[in-house]
Amino acid sequence: MTRAVRHDSMRARNLEVVLGEVARAGPLTRAALAELTGLTKSTVSKLVGDLIEAGILTESGPVRDGERGRPGVEVRLSGERLASLGLEVNVDYLAACLLDLAGTVRLRRRLDRDNRGADPAEVLACLRSLAEELLGAANRLGLSVAGASLAVSGTVEDGLLSNAPNLGWRDVRAAELLALPLPVELDNEANLAALGELWFGAGAERDFLYVSGEIGIGAGLVVDGSLFRGPHGFAGELGHVVVSPTGPPCRCGGHGCLESYAGQEALLRAAKRAGDLPGLLAALAGGEEFATSACAEAGRALGVALTSAVNLLDLDRIVLGGIFAKLYPWLCTAVEDTLRARLGGLRGSSPVLTASELGGDAAILGAARQVVERVLATPGDYLSLTRG
Amino acid sequence: MTRAVRHDSMRARNLEVVLGEVARAGPLTRAALAELTGLTKSTVSKLVGDLIEAGILTESGPVRDGERGRPGVEVRLSGERLASLGLEVNVDYLAACLLDLAGTVRLRRRLDRDNRGADPAEVLACLRSLAEELLGAANRLGLSVAGASLAVSGTVEDGLLSNAPNLGWRDVRAAELLALPLPVELDNEANLAALGELWFGAGAERDFLYVSGEIGIGAGLVVDGSLFRGPHGFAGELGHVVVSPTGPPCRCGGHGCLESYAGQEALLRAAKRAGDLPGLLAALAGGEEFATSACAEAGRALGVALTSAVNLLDLDRIVLGGIFAKLYPWLCTAVEDTLRARLGGLRGSSPVLTASELGGDAAILGAARQVVERVLATPGDYLSLTRG
Repeated sequence: MTRAVRHDSMRARNLEVVLGEVARAGPLTRAALAELTGLTKSTVSKLVGDLIEAGILTESGPVRDGERGRPGVEVRLSGERLASLGLEVNVDYLAACLLDLAGTVRLRRRLDRDNRGADPAEVLACLRSLAEELLGAANRLGLSVAGASLAVSGTVEDGLLSNAPNLGWRDVRAAELLALPLPVELDNEANLAALGELWFGAGAERDFLYVSGEIGIGAGLVVDGSLFRGPHGFAGELGHVVVSPTGPPCRCGGHGCLESYAGQEALLRAAKRAGDLPGLLAALAGGEEFATSACAEAGRALGVALTSAVNLLDLDRIVLGGIFAKLYPWLCTAVEDTLRARLGGLRGSSPVLTASELGGDAAILGAARQVVERVLATPGDYLSLTRG
Repeated sequence: MTRAVRHDSMRARNLEVVLGEVARAGPLTRAALAELTGLTKSTVSKLVGDLIEAGILTESGPVRDGERGRPGVEVRLSGERLASLGLEVNVDYLAACLLDLAGTVRLRRRLDRDNRGADPAEVLACLRSLAEELLGAANRLGLSVAGASLAVSGTVEDGLLSNAPNLGWRDVRAAELLALPLPVELDNEANLAALGELWFGAGAERDFLYVSGEIGIGAGLVVDGSLFRGPHGFAGELGHVVVSPTGPPCRCGGHGCLESYAGQEALLRAAKRAGDLPGLLAALAGGEEFATSACAEAGRALGVALTSAVNLLDLDRIVLGGIFAKLYPWLCTAVEDTLRARLGGLRGSSPVLTASELGGDAAILGAARQVVERVLATPGDYLSLTRG
């Protein structure tokens, strides 16, 4: 290793340490940063200067530095120069958001669109339009976009959307088809929605299962603040947990999977409201028997699948997202009763069930924030982004 | 922190580093250890001396030190001075083994005994006799026993066996009732058996689900060489994954749990061989219809529960242990066919299924080795053990 390389790598490490402290502990003076990191004040000043120049940090007005009475200037994450995009292709909608580095959502877009069986290139061209709209807005706001993360409702392997049974897609290079002029990473929708719940959700819980109810049903397991992905990133396929082995056929080739009882289509069909979620919600609000019993039935199936998940994963908290959050008032009793009846004997208590408050935005929020987390973790890679 | 405390903590850390290299990389000269750890040769010599005196390391005969032609003496883990006990209380047997620090099993004991509904104090007194026999043998062999780990077929919470439905035990302080004159830690049987498979099993796999088939059915998930325990250590309750929600009642209070189809009692009942596992094995060897169809039925139920586990946990490899290892030839086709039919559509391939080669010893081996791993990880705590 040459001396220059070693110096660069030490500088990168120190940038990470300084930025990590600001991201964790909020606005801090340079003096406080020197104390927290053990770096000299002049090193901290140089690093903070670089981070300010890159638009990653910004200065607040002068503050009194505690007891000592000396005025200090604090630095904090800047939301004025850098941002990220969260994008989503789901079965019946496209969505996008623009998130600045300080964590404020600047813009959201959502487009209802039936993507089943559609040409991936066509669907991703449509998402590109949404994304370009947000990139244009970012430009007008003076924000450089560090990258995008794309949520897809299917299994992702080595950057490839390998299988999305509800879209009818296999082996789609979704990030490449999107063809945006910035780095785009691909991830599973339920995984990103679970991270959205972790970072933007109501609770500060660090252990939970997030259940994503859409046309398909996925889940993201958060353990001690990190996503459990499994060896190939396929963990959390709750939709294909078996509810009853002789049940109705499922798109995956199996029978009696959760999705065939509680997926959006099965649920609407049972409620005699095929293809009409707003109609189902209206019917539920009006107390229609077909609608409420269909939800209770779906809730029981969800309770059975979640019983298996709790037994395998030792869960204390389950967050229902997507359409399950909207249907929560009509699902929750059946889910909770099933969990209590099946888990009480062994575990003593059943897990706490809540509805996500992020609605359909969980995945795009998690996606956008994942890019921000990357900038905060490796700021050295983003120093020149706002200088072009 | 005083200077003495800081020195002690640095010495403890250096002992760990040196011992870690020997445990990882096999016999090494002091010179090689100095190179690998970056410590000075005199520091390494002092640390190695302490580890030899404590009976943790031992010297091999002189070897030529590679190209340089200078003779060196290698040090390696000693199996002559320190050992650990692995103990198990299961529903229909007790077991124990004595493992030395170098990883050789010195002695094993197994006692068939119906522990269902028995007084915990009485059962643990019986296990104490087995353990004392091994402690006596260790003494005669010149081995000091660093500690014991006790595997129990139930949920363990804060050192308490909180619920063992197949034993009919609740809130049993099993380690205290055992009353051995050495530290005893308590852990779930399937967890320890999974670790046994990791450390003593045929493959060198670092990601797998170990399924423990006994009266109850448990599982231990190994992810990247570590056990996934879940927030309370209750993960892996495969026996209560739902196979069919309207199935037969289960001891846990639920219906149609895997255990009610493929637990030892259900299986023997279906094969018309209640309470007689050797009889079932003989009937299977003789090709008796009742026996083979009961195994196929249990295999299909196991396949359904494992489908749910694979979907949730993204598993590539499943190891069947306990009675499932003995019944493997008559179970495996049904399990594999079920997995293939249900998982092929989504995952492309189904996981590799194998039988554990450790038989009923997996849990005691994992238990004993867990104690050895603790000695290797924190040698400073064990330096004076062989000096009493």
